[in-house]
Amino acid sequence: MVASTTAGFRQLSQLGEFGLIRRFSRMTPKAVGAPLGIGDDTAAVVPSGKNHLMLLTCDPVIEGVHFDSSAAPFQIGWKAMARNLSDIAAMGGKPLYALVAASLPRKITTAQALEIYRGIMAATRKFGVAVVGGDTARSPHGIHVTVTVVGEVARSEIVARSGARVGDGLCVTGTLGASIRGKHLRFQPRMTEARFLARRFRPSAMIDVSDGLASDLRRLSEQSRVGFEVWAGALPISSDLRAQKLSKAREIHHALCDGEDYELLFTIAPGRLSRLQTIWKKRFRLRLTQIGVVRPRVFGIRLIESAGSRKILPFPSAGHDHFG
Amino acid sequence: MVASTTAGFRQLSQLGEFGLIRRFSRMTPKAVGAPLGIGDDTAAVVPSGKNHLMLLTCDPVIEGVHFDSSAAPFQIGWKAMARNLSDIAAMGGKPLYALVAASLPRKITTAQALEIYRGIMAATRKFGVAVVGGDTARSPHGIHVTVTVVGEVARSEIVARSGARVGDGLCVTGTLGASIRGKHLRFQPRMTEARFLARRFRPSAMIDVSDGLASDLRRLSEQSRVGFEVWAGALPISSDLRAQKLSKAREIHHALCDGEDYELLFTIAPGRLSRLQTIWKKRFRLRLTQIGVVRPRVFGIRLIESAGSRKILPFPSAGHDHFG
Repeated sequence: MVASTTAGFRQLSQLGEFGLIRRFSRMTPKAVGAPLGIGDDTAAVVPSGKNHLMLLTCDPVIEGVHFDSSAAPFQIGWKAMARNLSDIAAMGGKPLYALVAASLPRKITTAQALEIYRGIMAATRKFGVAVVGGDTARSPHGIHVTVTVVGEVARSEIVARSGARVGDGLCVTGTLGASIRGKHLRFQPRMTEARFLARRFRPSAMIDVSDGLASDLRRLSEQSRVGFEVWAGALPISSDLRAQKLSKAREIHHALCDGEDYELLFTIAPGRLSRLQTIWKKRFRLRLTQIGVVRPRVFGIRLIESAGSRKILPFPSAGHDHFG
Repeated sequence: MVASTTAGFRQLSQLGEFGLIRRFSRMTPKAVGAPLGIGDDTAAVVPSGKNHLMLLTCDPVIEGVHFDSSAAPFQIGWKAMARNLSDIAAMGGKPLYALVAASLPRKITTAQALEIYRGIMAATRKFGVAVVGGDTARSPHGIHVTVTVVGEVARSEIVARSGARVGDGLCVTGTLGASIRGKHLRFQPRMTEARFLARRFRPSAMIDVSDGLASDLRRLSEQSRVGFEVWAGALPISSDLRAQKLSKAREIHHALCDGEDYELLFTIAPGRLSRLQTIWKKRFRLRLTQIGVVRPRVFGIRLIESAGSRKILPFPSAGHDHFG
């Protein structure tokens, strides 16, 4: 690409992903009635009739970024669809339609290409989405699959990231850490669980853990304008992470930073917590763990050993930045 | 990527883009109420309330496929948005929302990245679309921008590819050929013209010329189950193509095959043709040319010198195949 003649010859890696998104956001006129803008790594929300909202999400999976050459084609397809479904789920939404834009290199076999599509279709069948269109193109380099999902949610059921209130419990589903050992390719979007939560227990805020609990908690903190007290001892560590037999401090660091767990991280009014835990246990085999509480904004995000403990542990500062 | 263990070790280039799309289509359950399926390189159509349909389109632009390293960043962004808008236009639709998934290599400058976004925004402003979301990721190789556009159309105004009737006139807007000399990066989606046609003149079938008139005419032929008589002498040749001073035969070949003209190719009842041409001239500065007529399917697609001529000229057989 030729050098642009406008100012600003810094390399993209200096500005970073979040800087770029912020600059782009400023160019973007706010959509009429769109409660959320671009760049917060969430589904876009636009009006859809009187009682509903449309959710729109579009995330790529790219060879060398989101998977490496050892990934099975089926899992590449599964991941391409599932990470978008996870975005819809985290807002309490229901997926309806999907578009699949696949750029595939000439070198792969027909069987491999079809395995990618089979992975996509397995995820759509499981979660009741209809693939209605898309595009197939040649890629001069690696595999690149971008899935768009259109979903909907009742206005009364949408869960945003901005509603956490001081005193709410902070909870996470499943376990955290070491997703790179395989889970990031075969994770289950927590669709049923998220719909159950949105309808029956109205979380005050919810997000799916994609960039790592530390980053995603910071997003909730910024958008809800609150702080968090996180209990290190309560973090549900994945068996893959435990199997690595790291020091407790390293284990916690991985649980907070590995990313791509695709679990639900949410806040909920304290009065609903014990009933939720009782009903959850009857209904799902998946773990549900309270890992902290919502605190005022000035509190910041603090990691402590357990509820009531005074010892503050270091909380990782860096978020995931694609251009970093 | 590891070799798949299922059958079919042919390389993708042997199956081809259309073969792959056909195989994928067979895996895809038809969406409830979706009048058109995947793989016809058109916007997907799904229900949206009582009187409207939602149009969904998602096409990538890929460095090394849809543009080369000499393309200006602004034009890359423009093209990424405009080719999706052209798909919506060709169905008589109105674009509403867009998502932008941009994968950018670390090597490009911030100014270049922002120029891509400026190109995207220029197209959205011009055609009244709101960018509501998307994703920014690192690309290990070239630039890769996938835009999704959500549009809508009144049920009474949608123009499909399947409605051409024997005796209809075949028309094209603008000029054809040599788009590679720049037009493919700075073309104008024929949004206003398409909406005007859909509302006032109800074309029986319409498509935007993306893969080349020969290929796109074949699509109309298959989906409408008709043949076409095309008048070589009437084809509106672009000034860029004329400037190449080729033989008449080569010129016609380029006009039929170059692709990426993004003009509207449509069929219309013969009784409406002369009135359309009168009103069109008053309203638009863009050319509108009748280039043939719809014939029965058994006629096939025949190129003749001009209306009434008996000499059949060779009609190009190959369509554009990304994996070919």
